[in-house]
Amino acid sequence: MSDQAPIRIDALQYGNWSGKIFQQMREGGVDAVHVTICYHGNFRDTVTNIEDWNRLFERHADLIVHGRWADDVHEARRSDRTAIFFGFQNCSPIEEDIGLVEICHALGVRFMQLSYNNQSLLATGCYESEDPGITRMGRAVVKEMNRVGLVVDMSHSAERSTLDAIEVSERPIAITHANPSTWHPARRNKSDRLLTALAESGGMLGLSLYPHHLLGGSDCTLSSFCTMVARLVDKIGISHVGIGSDLCQDQPDSVVEWMRSGRWTKQVDFGEGSQDNAGFPSQPQWFRDNRDFPNLDQGLASAGFSQQEVAMIAGQNWLDFFERSFGPRSSG
Amino acid sequence: MSDQAPIRIDALQYGNWSGKIFQQMREGGVDAVHVTICYHGNFRDTVTNIEDWNRLFERHADLIVHGRWADDVHEARRSDRTAIFFGFQNCSPIEEDIGLVEICHALGVRFMQLSYNNQSLLATGCYESEDPGITRMGRAVVKEMNRVGLVVDMSHSAERSTLDAIEVSERPIAITHANPSTWHPARRNKSDRLLTALAESGGMLGLSLYPHHLLGGSDCTLSSFCTMVARLVDKIGISHVGIGSDLCQDQPDSVVEWMRSGRWTKQVDFGEGSQDNAGFPSQPQWFRDNRDFPNLDQGLASAGFSQQEVAMIAGQNWLDFFERSFGPRSSG
Repeated sequence: MSDQAPIRIDALQYGNWSGKIFQQMREGGVDAVHVTICYHGNFRDTVTNIEDWNRLFERHADLIVHGRWADDVHEARRSDRTAIFFGFQNCSPIEEDIGLVEICHALGVRFMQLSYNNQSLLATGCYESEDPGITRMGRAVVKEMNRVGLVVDMSHSAERSTLDAIEVSERPIAITHANPSTWHPARRNKSDRLLTALAESGGMLGLSLYPHHLLGGSDCTLSSFCTMVARLVDKIGISHVGIGSDLCQDQPDSVVEWMRSGRWTKQVDFGEGSQDNAGFPSQPQWFRDNRDFPNLDQGLASAGFSQQEVAMIAGQNWLDFFERSFGPRSSG
Repeated sequence: MSDQAPIRIDALQYGNWSGKIFQQMREGGVDAVHVTICYHGNFRDTVTNIEDWNRLFERHADLIVHGRWADDVHEARRSDRTAIFFGFQNCSPIEEDIGLVEICHALGVRFMQLSYNNQSLLATGCYESEDPGITRMGRAVVKEMNRVGLVVDMSHSAERSTLDAIEVSERPIAITHANPSTWHPARRNKSDRLLTALAESGGMLGLSLYPHHLLGGSDCTLSSFCTMVARLVDKIGISHVGIGSDLCQDQPDSVVEWMRSGRWTKQVDFGEGSQDNAGFPSQPQWFRDNRDFPNLDQGLASAGFSQQEVAMIAGQNWLDFFERSFGPRSSG
């Protein structure tokens, strides 16, 4: 690697935020992180979450800054801080109100999943047995998201809905955190057909480091992960691949229960886990937290990627995508 | 007057918004208007009002643009449009939640009255019999408003609360729409003591053209109004005076009832009106709507103001205030 560290962007984290984690982002050379600010809340709940973030921005102004535009990644890098970009893993914050799309964008939200595991007002989640595709409201909302610059994220959506979203969206979409199902056939991972369509439309995949998405789970090796990346790049090209670690650091297991069950069921839904493995799984030893990102660079280099290719995967591809995606659609 | 029209800013309107009114703003050469987006609503109500404005910005993109910063006034002028700046006439949108100050600023809100006629959580309104001054929450909120760049507006507040606000606020405040009570002793007009303190602290007064604030009401003459301005400027200087017309165009009388009574009483509160004059009063014939702003220029010139002084009152003073006020407080 050169003396100049690559631009590094992580397209998904949901930590139990603290100065410790922000410090680790700096130690790992992480210039920008897309953080989840909603799983199941409504608009007002989400505004409260943004208020909490605003207090973190005040309290940790030496480590983090609110990221709104691609240029904020450069500015964060210059000032030795990490730019934090907001996103939703569900469409619940916009309730039944398309006008909230622009409101949320004005508040700095840059990604919104159309569904999270279950059927939503907009699209189907990957745990439903039937997937009727993007709904009527879904088509209207995708158009509005395209207009204002809120990126469609289909990480937790079902296959047909995702293929629909790629087709319906007039701007490239993202799958911020998932891996190829040919490598590890988890329900949350994505088929080659889908990943090919994503790349052909100019979309982005963030590769996940969440153990349930990894072949071998917590025991997955860095070499296995990086070989998977090499094969994926052979199929869909290198320009559409980045990292979306899905790192959920320092969270109690009550949080993964909330992610899975919210208030939509009184039963326990184990999601990707199981009754005897219900909590957060352990991270692989080569990616425990933000300080381990450089391990990925080395693994990718060992798998045959050039320094320039490593830099593209580490952050440059996401940065290019941010530049194209976060502003209002240019007229015409 | 020179060939180049002055920069023209109106620091308060609440019209029944339509393409007709926006077209009249263009005909009157109005570069920016501070519009009221809340009298009595809570946060969610106010977000809905912003959504409605966003639809107006889309629909009338040839006439208006959302103003967020002083520079947007120049940009609006260059593109032959009117920049619309949001403001609240009450603090109800922030509910009991200081974090909503920054949220509202992010949504483009630039003025907030600490109270509207009645006692609020923050300050006392001008119709209360007792005025205990700025509250504990009021002091905390003013500090937060100072931090983010949300201007304290005391147009409808009581005297002691207003003097307190001038003292407590570390940045200059505004009275966006009122006149001197020495000219016309209406309850909403302001004492010389208060206007002097406002000017000495760098604050701004927007002179009102709402008939209840005018000597003689709807029959007030342009000459009387402009002579009042000349005397005011003799007292407090010209740099602190602009226009805040309080124009409420095309509104049904149900709207003035809402302004006065909201949902805080089941009685009818006549406010500045009376049982036999309960509705909106008629505008003076020399200021019927946005097309009549040039009449003010002529009236002020006739009252002895130079072309440069007329330009300061017409908009330059407000523009300078916008430049100093809308951004985050510089450190230190």
